This record gives sequence, C-alpha cells and structure tokens, in this order.
Amino acid sequence: MGLVADAFSEDSFKKLIGFNAIGHCRYSTTGESNVRNIQPICINYGRGSLALAHNGNLINAVSLRRKLEAEGSIFSSTSDSEVIVHLIARSKKKKFADALVDALKQIKGAYSLLVMTEDELFAVCDPYGIRPLSIATINGSWVFASETCAFDLVGAKYIRAVKPGEVVRVNKNGMSSISIGKTKRYGHCIFEFIYFSRPDSLIFDISVQEARDKLGMELFKEHPAIADIVIPVPDSSTSAAIGYSKASKIPFEMGLIRNHYIGRTFIEPEQSIRDFGAKIKYNPVKRLLDGKRIVVVDDSIVRGTTSRKIVKLLRKAGAKEIHWRISCPPITYPCFYGIDTPLRSELIGATHTVEEIRKYLHVESLGYLSAEGLLRSVNGNKNQYCLACFNGDYPLKN
Amino acid sequence: MGLVADAFSEDSFKKLIGFNAIGHCRYSTTGESNVRNIQPICINYGRGSLALAHNGNLINAVSLRRKLEAEGSIFSSTSDSEVIVHLIARSKKKKFADALVDALKQIKGAYSLLVMTEDELFAVCDPYGIRPLSIATINGSWVFASETCAFDLVGAKYIRAVKPGEVVRVNKNGMSSISIGKTKRYGHCIFEFIYFSRPDSLIFDISVQEARDKLGMELFKEHPAIADIVIPVPDSSTSAAIGYSKASKIPFEMGLIRNHYIGRTFIEPEQSIRDFGAKIKYNPVKRLLDGKRIVVVDDSIVRGTTSRKIVKLLRKAGAKEIHWRISCPPITYPCFYGIDTPLRSELIGATHTVEEIRKYLHVESLGYLSAEGLLRSVNGNKNQYCLACFNGDYPLKN
Amino acid sequence: MGLVADAFSEDSFKKLIGFNAIGHCRYSTTGESNVRNIQPICINYGRGSLALAHNGNLINAVSLRRKLEAEGSIFSSTSDSEVIVHLIARSKKKKFADALVDALKQIKGAYSLLVMTEDELFAVCDPYGIRPLSIATINGSWVFASETCAFDLVGAKYIRAVKPGEVVRVNKNGMSSISIGKTKRYGHCIFEFIYFSRPDSLIFDISVQEARDKLGMELFKEHPAIADIVIPVPDSSTSAAIGYSKASKIPFEMGLIRNHYIGRTFIEPEQSIRDFGAKIKYNPVKRLLDGKRIVVVDDSIVRGTTSRKIVKLLRKAGAKEIHWRISCPPITYPCFYGIDTPLRSELIGATHTVEEIRKYLHVESLGYLSAEGLLRSVNGNKNQYCLACFNGDYPLKN
Amino acid sequence: MGLVADAFSEDSFKKLIGFNAIGHCRYSTTGESNVRNIQPICINYGRGSLALAHNGNLINAVSLRRKLEAEGSIFSSTSDSEVIVHLIARSKKKKFADALVDALKQIKGAYSLLVMTEDELFAVCDPYGIRPLSIATINGSWVFASETCAFDLVGAKYIRAVKPGEVVRVNKNGMSSISIGKTKRYGHCIFEFIYFSRPDSLIFDISVQEARDKLGMELFKEHPAIADIVIPVPDSSTSAAIGYSKASKIPFEMGLIRNHYIGRTFIEPEQSIRDFGAKIKYNPVKRLLDGKRIVVVDDSIVRGTTSRKIVKLLRKAGAKEIHWRISCPPITYPCFYGIDTPLRSELIGATHTVEEIRKYLHVESLGYLSAEGLLRSVNGNKNQYCLACFNGDYPLKN
Repeated sequence: MGLVADAFSEDSFKKLIGFNAIGHCRYSTTGESNVRNIQPICINYGRGSLALAHNGNLINAVSLRRKLEAEGSIFSSTSDSEVIVHLIARSKKKKFADALVDALKQIKGAYSLLVMTEDELFAVCDPYGIRPLSIATINGSWVFASETCAFDLVGAKYIRAVKPGEVVRVNKNGMSSISIGKTKRYGHCIFEFIYFSRPDSLIFDISVQEARDKLGMELFKEHPAIADIVIPVPDSSTSAAIGYSKASKIPFEMGLIRNHYIGRTFIEPEQSIRDFGAKIKYNPVKRLLDGKRIVVVDDSIVRGTTSRKIVKLLRKAGAKEIHWRISCPPITYPCFYGIDTPLRSELIGATHTVEEIRKYLHVESLGYLSAEGLLRSVNGNKNQYCLACFNGDYPLKN
Repeated sequence: MGLVADAFSEDSFKKLIGFNAIGHCRYSTTGESNVRNIQPICINYGRGSLALAHNGNLINAVSLRRKLEAEGSIFSSTSDSEVIVHLIARSKKKKFADALVDALKQIKGAYSLLVMTEDELFAVCDPYGIRPLSIATINGSWVFASETCAFDLVGAKYIRAVKPGEVVRVNKNGMSSISIGKTKRYGHCIFEFIYFSRPDSLIFDISVQEARDKLGMELFKEHPAIADIVIPVPDSSTSAAIGYSKASKIPFEMGLIRNHYIGRTFIEPEQSIRDFGAKIKYNPVKRLLDGKRIVVVDDSIVRGTTSRKIVKLLRKAGAKEIHWRISCPPITYPCFYGIDTPLRSELIGATHTVEEIRKYLHVESLGYLSAEGLLRSVNGNKNQYCLACFNGDYPLKN
Repeated sequence: MGLVADAFSEDSFKKLIGFNAIGHCRYSTTGESNVRNIQPICINYGRGSLALAHNGNLINAVSLRRKLEAEGSIFSSTSDSEVIVHLIARSKKKKFADALVDALKQIKGAYSLLVMTEDELFAVCDPYGIRPLSIATINGSWVFASETCAFDLVGAKYIRAVKPGEVVRVNKNGMSSISIGKTKRYGHCIFEFIYFSRPDSLIFDISVQEARDKLGMELFKEHPAIADIVIPVPDSSTSAAIGYSKASKIPFEMGLIRNHYIGRTFIEPEQSIRDFGAKIKYNPVKRLLDGKRIVVVDDSIVRGTTSRKIVKLLRKAGAKEIHWRISCPPITYPCFYGIDTPLRSELIGATHTVEEIRKYLHVESLGYLSAEGLLRSVNGNKNQYCLACFNGDYPLKN
Repeated sequence: MGLVADAFSEDSFKKLIGFNAIGHCRYSTTGESNVRNIQPICINYGRGSLALAHNGNLINAVSLRRKLEAEGSIFSSTSDSEVIVHLIARSKKKKFADALVDALKQIKGAYSLLVMTEDELFAVCDPYGIRPLSIATINGSWVFASETCAFDLVGAKYIRAVKPGEVVRVNKNGMSSISIGKTKRYGHCIFEFIYFSRPDSLIFDISVQEARDKLGMELFKEHPAIADIVIPVPDSSTSAAIGYSKASKIPFEMGLIRNHYIGRTFIEPEQSIRDFGAKIKYNPVKRLLDGKRIVVVDDSIVRGTTSRKIVKLLRKAGAKEIHWRISCPPITYPCFYGIDTPLRSELIGATHTVEEIRKYLHVESLGYLSAEGLLRSVNGNKNQYCLACFNGDYPLKN
C-alpha cells in the first residue's frame, strides 16, 4: 500500500523467483482504499494459485457478489474485482482458460485485466475496449501495460493494443488470442487523451501528445482569443496549450509553476479528480503575467473551485484579461467505468450554463471544445469512443 | 501478530465499540505462523459478519478443505480453523445456530471455539472435551476463557467448565445450551495439568496447583530418593517440586534461576515444546548446589537435550548426586489435538528405555510417574482423560 | 532505547568490529528517559573517540554542569553522566588515564563506570564502592558487569569485585590498577541484596541467595509466627521466604502467581520502584490459601499501596490470618545514589509507626527485620554498608 | 530526516508552541548525511536554548573545529555548521547579539543563517552575499526564506533580500540591522539563476524566470541554429528553451517527458548534481521528434554522461539533427561554497575542449553561453557575482 517506491524495497524484488510476474498501481474507485483491497488479488484455491490485476470498474459487481455469497462464497475484500476470482473458482469448466472465459461472460463493465496462473498469463480487454491495455515484447518475452511509456522505461518494443473483447494468452507455446464476443460499437474512454494518460504514451494505438496538440489547435479554431501569452495549467494541459499557441501564434509561457513535491494528482485516491485542484499548489510567475492579456488552457472543469482559485492567483499577479479555454466539452454525467467523478449535482457543467460558469470563474471569456472537435483530434467517431461523461450516451445500457 | 502488549496499543481498544468482543492468543500448531493465520478469523459473508477463535486442532481439516475448494470456496489462510467458517457459509440452514451445528457435525478433532455474530456469542466444546473452556460472569455479562486465571484478572466470577459436546449460546435473552451429541468416553487433555496451564487456574473444574502438588507427592511415593535438597526446573515444575518436598521432608530450594526476559515458552511457536529448553537460559545458584545430593523435579522429557544441558550445569555447580524425577510417564506418541510434539522418532521416551535415558542424562537415578499415579492426582480415570501421548490410546479413531 | 531484545537485532551485532565493546542497560534515575540520554555516551572529541557507561548517580552534577556551560561546553543530553566526559575533554593532562583520574577527582556520588577509548578500557568504582562492579575473564580477555549472573551466561570465570576507589585499566599490556583515593568507610548499597540483584549473582563478593536465605532466617528469629504456610511475594522475596520456612518449619508454598508477561519491575523507569506494585499483577491460588494462617514474606514496603492490595487478594481467597514479614527495616530516607525512591512524605515508613502500618495493611501482625539482623545476614558492619535509606546516615556528606 | 512530508506529520506541528520557529531543508554538502547532521542544530547551553539553520559552506570549519576540540569542546555532529554554535557558546561577550557577531567574525565562507534564541531571531548573510536569503512580512510578523516562492505559498509579502554582511535582528521591538563588515566585491552565486532556484522566485532581488528567459535569448544570439523545434531538458531548462524559441522563432515543444515520481534532483544528496542525470528518467515523445532537426536547451554539462544518454534517446526516437545549447559557460572549477560539484578531473568542461565535448555527445553542434552573455542576463558585472565555477576567480582567497 502506498507509492511504489515506498511499498517496495530492493530486497522485495530479490525475493521474487520464477518467470512470470504482474504488478498493479491502482487508482482505486470501487471498494475502500485499505490493505485488503490491494491488487493484484492473490489467492490459493482448488486449481492452485492465481493472481489478478484489474483496471476499470464492473457495473454488475454488487448483484454478482450477493449471488455468490448466498451460495457460500466468502469474500476477503470489498473490491469489485474479487467477484472475478470467485466466478473462476466456481466455474465447472475443466480447463482454466475456459473457466476464465466463463467468468468473463458473467461480468459487465470496464475491465482491462492481467490474470496469472502458475504457468500462464492472460491479458484481457472488455468487449467495449473501455480502458487501454497494450502489448510489447522484450528479449523474446511479452510485456503488458496500460500506458506505453512503461515499455520505454524498460526498453520493450511496442506491438499493439489489446483489442476489445480479446483474451491474449501467453504460455510456453507463445502468444495466442481468444475472443469473448463482439459488440456493435466500441467505447474507448476519450478522457484518457484529455487528462489521464502521459503525453509520451500511445493509447488505443494513438499518440497522446499528438491528440493533445490537436485539441489545442481545434480549441483555437473554435474559440480564438486576442492575447499576449498562452499559459497551461501544468502539467496535463501543457501539450494542448502549445497546440493553441502554435495555431494562434500567441507566445507560449510557463506562467504557473507547479509544486512537484505533492505528487501527481490522480494516483492518490484521497486527492482524486473530484477535488484535484484543492490541494495542489500552483505558483504564478508575476513577472510574466503582470499587465498581460492571458489565454489559460486547462483540460477540464469539474466543480470549478480550483479554476476559480487559479483565476484569483493570476489576477493578484497582475493579469489584465483572462481567456479560459477547456480542451473538452462540459462534464455533465458521472463515469461508471472507473473515473472517480462526483455526483451530477456537484458537476458545475451539469448545473450551470457556460455563461454562468464564466461569471463564476470571473474571466473575460470561456470556451469549451465541442464533441466534434474532440473526436476530430483523435481521428475517431462516436461509435469508437465513450463520450458519456459529456453526453450521457453510455455504451453499456445497464 | 506478536505478543499482546506489542500487538495492541491503548488506542486500539478505544476504537472498539459494541457490546460483544472476542480475542485470541494462539499457540499456532496447524498452518504457518503468519499474518493471514491470525485469529480471530473475521469475515463478511452472506449472513453478515462473523468472528471465530479456535483452540485445538481438527484432524479432518485437509479433506474438508479439498472438498470445499473443489466446490469453488476460496480460502484466505492456511489455518485448519478456516474450514469451519466456510462450512457455516455453505450451510443451507436458515438460522445461524442451525448452520453452526451443521458445520460442527462435519468437523472432527479438538476444538474449543468462540463464535461471534452481530448479535450473538457461541462458546463450543468438542464432544470429547479435549481442550478446556470455562464460563464466568461479571456485572450480569458472560465471559469465556481457556484458563480461569483470566477471570481473576478482570474480577469475573467462575461458574463452570463448558461441557463436552456443549454449544453455549449467549444473546439478549441470556445464556442457553445446545448439545451436539454424546460420546462413550471423554478425552480431557491431561497434559494441561502437567505443563500447559497456570497453577492459579481451574481446568475441567479441577485446580491445577492441587493436581501438581499431588503429582509431586505421588512421584515421591513411586520414586523416593535420599537427598539434601529438592529443586524444580522453574516455573512449570515448581508446584510438583514443593509437593515432592512436602512428602519427602527434603528441603525445597530454588537452585535454578530462570531468565524471565525470554518470555514464557509455549506461546511463541518458534521455540515450541519441541525444543523449549534450547533457547531458555537457566542459571544455577552455586552456593545452594555445591556438594549436595539433589532431587530435580521436571514436568516432562521430550527430546532429552535440555535436561542433559541442565544436568551439566548442576554438575559444574558442584552437585554430588542428581536424582531426576518426571511428573508424568514417558512421552511416546505424538499429539494430534493441538500440542506441538515432534515425530515419534525424536521422542526420547519412544526410542529409549528408562535406563538408557538415565545414562544419556548422566544422573544417579531417574523416575517417571506412572499413568495410575497421574490419574490419581486428578481424581480421574482413563475414560475421562486423553493419555494418548503416553499410551497411544487416541479418543478419536481417525 | 527499550528492552535489549527490541533495541538490538542480530544484524546490529554483525556490524560490530574491533576487539573492545561496552553496553548498558540503565535504570535511568537522573535525566529524563529519552533517546538523548541513552548510554553508553559516545563522543568524538579532541583525543579521538570515547564511550562511557555509568551505573549510579552523581550528587554534584548540577553545579559541575553549570560551571562547564559557563565556560562554553555544550551538553547534548540531560544525563548527569555527561559531565564526566566534558571534564575529561577539558582536562589539560596529556595522557588519557591522567585526564580520567583528573575528572574522577571532581565528581562526587555513586559511580561504577566503564570507559572505552580506541585502545583501552577502564572499569571504575567510586571511593565508597556504592554500586557493584565485578571482574571476570574468558579466553584470556577481561569482562566487567554489575551482576555476576551475566558472566555465567557467557561462560566467563568470576575473579573479584572492583574495589572502592579502584580504576582497573585494560590494554594490550594486560590489566593494571590505579587508585583514586581512600575513604574512612565504605558504602556498599545493602539494598542490592534485599531487592535489586538476582539471587544467582555475587555482589561485593557475597552470594545474594545466601544473604536472602539468612534474611529470612533472621526474620523468623526476630518475628516468629504461628501459621500453616509461608508464601513469598514473588520473585524477589522467594529466597527469603524459603529461609523463613526452613527456620520456622512452616511449609513453603507458591500462594501468589506472578504474571511474567509484564516484565521485571525495576528495569522500566515508568514503573519504577516508586509504584512497582501498581501495575504488576499477582494472582492468588485460592486452593492453597482458603482457611489458612499465612506468613507473607516481602522485601520492602515503599508506599504501602501494593502490599495493601495483596492483602485484599489474600483475604478474598480465604486467608484466615495474615502475618506480614519484611526482610529489611522501614524505608525512611530517600536514596541519592541511584535508587529511585519517592519523597520522604510518601514513604509510609517515614510517616507512620509500625503499628499504624499494620492497621493500614489490615494484617494480624507485621514484622520488619532490624538493621542488626540485616548486617548479620551479609556478615558486615555499618562501616562497610550504606543503610542511609533506613537510618539517614549517608556516606557522602555532600 | 527525509522529505518534509515524510519527516513531519500533522501532529508534529500541533505540538509546536510559542511565537517563533525555524526549519531547514538542507542540501547537505559538508558532513555525512545522517541523523546527527540534521538541521536546525538545537542546543541547550549556558545561555539557554539556541537553534541554528545554515545554507552554504564554511571554508575554515576544519581548523576552527580542531582548535575548539583542543580546548575541550565536544561536537555532536560532523557538520561544518556546528562550529558556529560552539563559537557562540565560547564567546565572552555578555549580550547574545555581541556573541553572535563575535562568532561570525571568526568564520569564513558562504553562510546564510537563521539563528533563534528564546526571545529573538537573527537572519544573517555572509559579507560576500554568496547564498540568497530574503525577507517578507505577514500579519505584522517577519518571515525569512532562501527562495521567495516560499513566501507566495503562505501569502507573505516580499520586502527585500538580506544584504551581504547584514545581521537582521527580530525581537519584540521589531526588526533592526547590524553590519558585520564590508568587502570590496560581492559574490552572489550566479548558478542559483542557471539551475538551483525555482523560476517563480526572486533571488538577490532579481526574477529567476526573467533571467532564464534572457539566458535563452542571449544563447540564440551567440549560438543560432537552423532547426524544426526547440526542446528543453525539463524542468530547469524550460524557461531558457522558451527564451531561445522566442528569439529564434523556432517552435517550442515538450519533446522529453520527465518522470516526476523520482523527486526533484538537488534535494537528495545521494543523487546530487554530480550525477543528477544518472537516475532521472526522461522519456522522448517519438511523434514530435521523428525526422526533425532539434535544438536542445540544457542548463549545464557536468560530467557529460547524462547529456550523452539523452542524445541517444533522441536519436532512437528519430531525431535527424541535434543542436545542443547550454545556458552557461563550461564548468571548469569546483565550488567551495555549497554546491556539490565533482573533482576537476571529472568535470568534462575542465578536461575537454568544446569540440571534443561535441564529439563525445555525438551532436551536430554545441554552444555554451559566454560569461558576458550570462552577466548581461542578470544585469550584473563580475564584481557582483561569483563565477568561480566557470573562471576560478573565487571571492574568498583561502
């Protein structure tokens, strides 16, 4: 539990033996954050040992758990992911791969999984392909990760994304694929491009940096501004702000310095996306801002409280005009697939008009990128991506 | 995990709310000593929450676990006690008390249990009554403990022992009893009197101090000696040595000082009864022993290595003659009911004659108390007690 | 800080190199119990490195510290022992041994010291010989300890006690002695025999067990009783109770069981001699006490509260008569030499007559051993021992 | 010891009482990094209590310590800063302020100090003004910090820098100044602008961001390049790279992503400036770099190993041409005033020509900013700044 560097010592790695390993750095969304909910889930059961790591969120976990408990299963965590291992344990199928598919057919929602047995490794993506999962290779071995920047660190060669509905199986015979079924549409989470993923990663086979650069350019096309400088709310908006600067020819500057000691936002549940700005400190560079007309590029507005605080900081540093630009549409619906958004009533985009938000933030102008501009930036259409947080169109109906 | 004083801070008690509590200080015998095997076992399952503490050892745990796992149950520890909660969870009985009895009827072996649900508490003793469990009352509440000295510490009034095959149920309606069946004989563990229990406790309604006093007296009757002083191997043999001294009129002295910093033997598994003497330090009081004929009273000889070391210490301190007296018969069979004895091949009593042991210890005489003397000391007969470690007559046949 | 077993891991010993080592297990009396006051005091200074361990208490530490601080010395602890290292550091003597003697001539009070430099070891006893310090040898090396039972554990051969006013010097040339001056009388702490030391130790070259045995015998001579059993308040009074039993022919029994999990009293400052009974739990063995006339032998009465609690326990267990016997005179004065006694106003022996104490304890009779009986038990006279806690006759006038 | 967030809990702040406080986050350069060398140094001595925090490095600490130890002072750390408190303790001056000045006149080197007594606070800057120290005010109180970004975080109003040779004294009578002497020149560390300080800080009353912006512009004037993009080695070179981009009209891009989990370089001694690149991970954004001519702006080259690794990363990501630009001259001399540079023989700038370094890095062109360009960027001259690491002209001669 805790940051990777705190949880593992060098000694803990020396103890690892064998030819197969999985790890997990979870942004916990379902089930409390405590030691029992740590992943990978590791169990000993009738078939031997099993480890499972899950990125995403199941939408039928509660009813499945209730059914399993009525039949006598005992859960040792409150995590939604534990239902998967109980379904595997209960399956009557003889072969493990069949028991896994049996279990997967019963669960609904977003799931990118790594499942390790004593002699095999499985990488699974749900039929809608909601969360990313990628394949790479190094020295004849296979590696899987959510973001491809992890491959760069270890020097692995990127191959491709795991496909929606694909179960990738790795064992002594090499890699092979099983399908768990097709759907009429996909539901790749578009928010991964806007905020979550690192710019040096490929997500669903697309460059995050390229997507963000285009978000900034599209944003200028839709919401131009006359200003002296363009500044990002660092770090997640830097690429989009550079795109805006290039399209507009307005100079790019680092007008806000972020205090990096605090750690990246989204990985610590207690300062999750719900209130990500509340605790993070930005410091304005007065010399750059004083007397200037400023375009601020940010990735999203959730409650609006953090944005408002930043506006105050900028005004105090002497900003003459502030033009706020958001690289996505207003967030109006909650996410059920693993991003920790607040209740609708707390989403400022769901309860206020753009003009009301502009007044609340106290800025000269406010512009949100349209859904069309967003899809253009990722070369996609609405049958490929989930935009439910912007339009309520959830890929899974219940 | 660890000693009670280390495992619990004052704060941990402040956090406890409610009207019901169980705790456990286990001398772990089955399942490794690790954090997953800590008791009470606490689970959330189909019926709500459940906590269970188990003293003793099940003899059919492995086969029950194999069967439960084949049906899809996932165990979270290697403890034999966990099968009981899975059997409860799997029971089709509607009422909890019925489900508990259902589970108890499937398990075999030694078990004194405390089982706590959200509104009830159950105290259970197996049909042979192998391990002790006693009932007391304080301020209108009910208290249960293995040894009655625990009642004295909190000021609770002793009532009686839980009977073999009795399920004592405590809820808002008070205390009541359920029977889980009768057996032709009982199997109270006689070793509790010899070594395990504290002299200030009652066990199976009998005073441990009185039993040990009589063990020492019987021992003198069966194996008298002409000597200057009687010394115990402290602390467990002190009462028996005083009994021997009183019967023989030979003065009692504390000729060996025990280093109490090391902690009581049997509670730490890594220095269990198998090698209890190896790490414990005794220091001889030279001034008392020099030039003397000495009777040493000890509770048992397991491997013989510790006894031999003590003999060397006494000789070095000047002992002229050493007469070794053991307050029970030779241990010749392993215990399957919760006492951590070694393999038969390592039991010196199983592999050597008394004369051979005497020579090995290098003492002038060696006397073991007979089974008859042992039973006389506890006012009992062989249909009440388990003497299997001395005679191989196990109450449960498999 | 903490118990030895907690403070040191096996690894901490592996790191120790060299041919010389000192350690310390201090019953802290002066200076708060915190990490800065841990001993040995280890310093780097003008002459190199130095380590010093001190048993006892200096009576002129405050004025020496004030003087040293006025001259610019900076203390890093609140311990009285630190003045010694500053005096050594300030000495103008060229040779270390001369600087040490220079420092010792300035300090007053009780001090048994071990002082280690990079190539020498010094064992020092103050001119009155107040605290014990003994010499042993093992494999051609020299070992020093307060109590000789430490030598037995490691197999070292006892040689003799360090003499009052002796500085024993050990270096590559072997062992030699320096004198720091003679006094008209000695002041060996007689309380070491009564309570502090272990019965398996020699203190000031005398057996503690033998002394306690005689204390019990003298106590019977001075204060006989007609009773059924003699019981000790374990563990420190056990030897004296056996002595009383042997002299009186009244049977010895272990009527009180001590809970050893709590740890030995005097080593933990927070449950020091001031209130040693308050937290220690004794449990009576009802079967032994019920309906009996009992002699209880204890080593001392400080405040009287613990003794009174034990009397209540015994009465509750059925004791018919209680005859309380103390193996020393009433404590009426505080100790300035390292034993943590309370204010005079809190010493029941200083504020009440024996008859008043008897009534307070609620016992049938109460007998204290006389100073003469005490001195007889250790074969000594009042010019050899400090009995100041009983009679106010302090060896150092201050 | 450790990061601020790890070393202090919220509870540790609740315990602080009083009206005065100092803290320290030291980049340890002299004395090992261990618990004894933690600052502030807190002592109790003849005048009461004292706390002292030191930024910088004394060059006569060893000889002062040797002298003090010969006179009997005992040091409790290996830190050069501890000599200051011993000099204060030894001073014969009656008033504390006089004793402080007395001590300061004996030390030589770089020192920005905070000294706290029970009722006063002193902020001190050495006569050359080597390390920065600034004054701010909040709610009628005075605040001091090395970097002004700390004032922004707590909302304090910046007043001015502490002057070279100034002792600022704060007590119940308010703020006043004492001078410890004038020098012919100053020696502000110019490396604070190049690398150390945050861009949102003022240092020596000058904006770090503005200085870095100008460094980048001057760098383009001296070393132009024909390229497709300008990228920084983040984060310390970002402002200079933006300056270069603005002057050159070549687009600015974030072509390297820094892994922020590792923590800021210079605060952890074990990954000090000597090998700051070795452990920090940069990840290239392939999509931005592939087939491009790239200007890389970095703040310095120490050993050259990290720069060379980055070049390899960029080539692997497809960079066609690499033009390396450094915003300062080659580092050719060690720093004695608190920056942890390696031996001259390990400084690539001291042992190789620019052309040799270019070949070693394997880049198309390499340009260092001149000393004149550097001084122009901070509006200064060589009598105000220390450029010793570039030219060997040390302000203090020994």
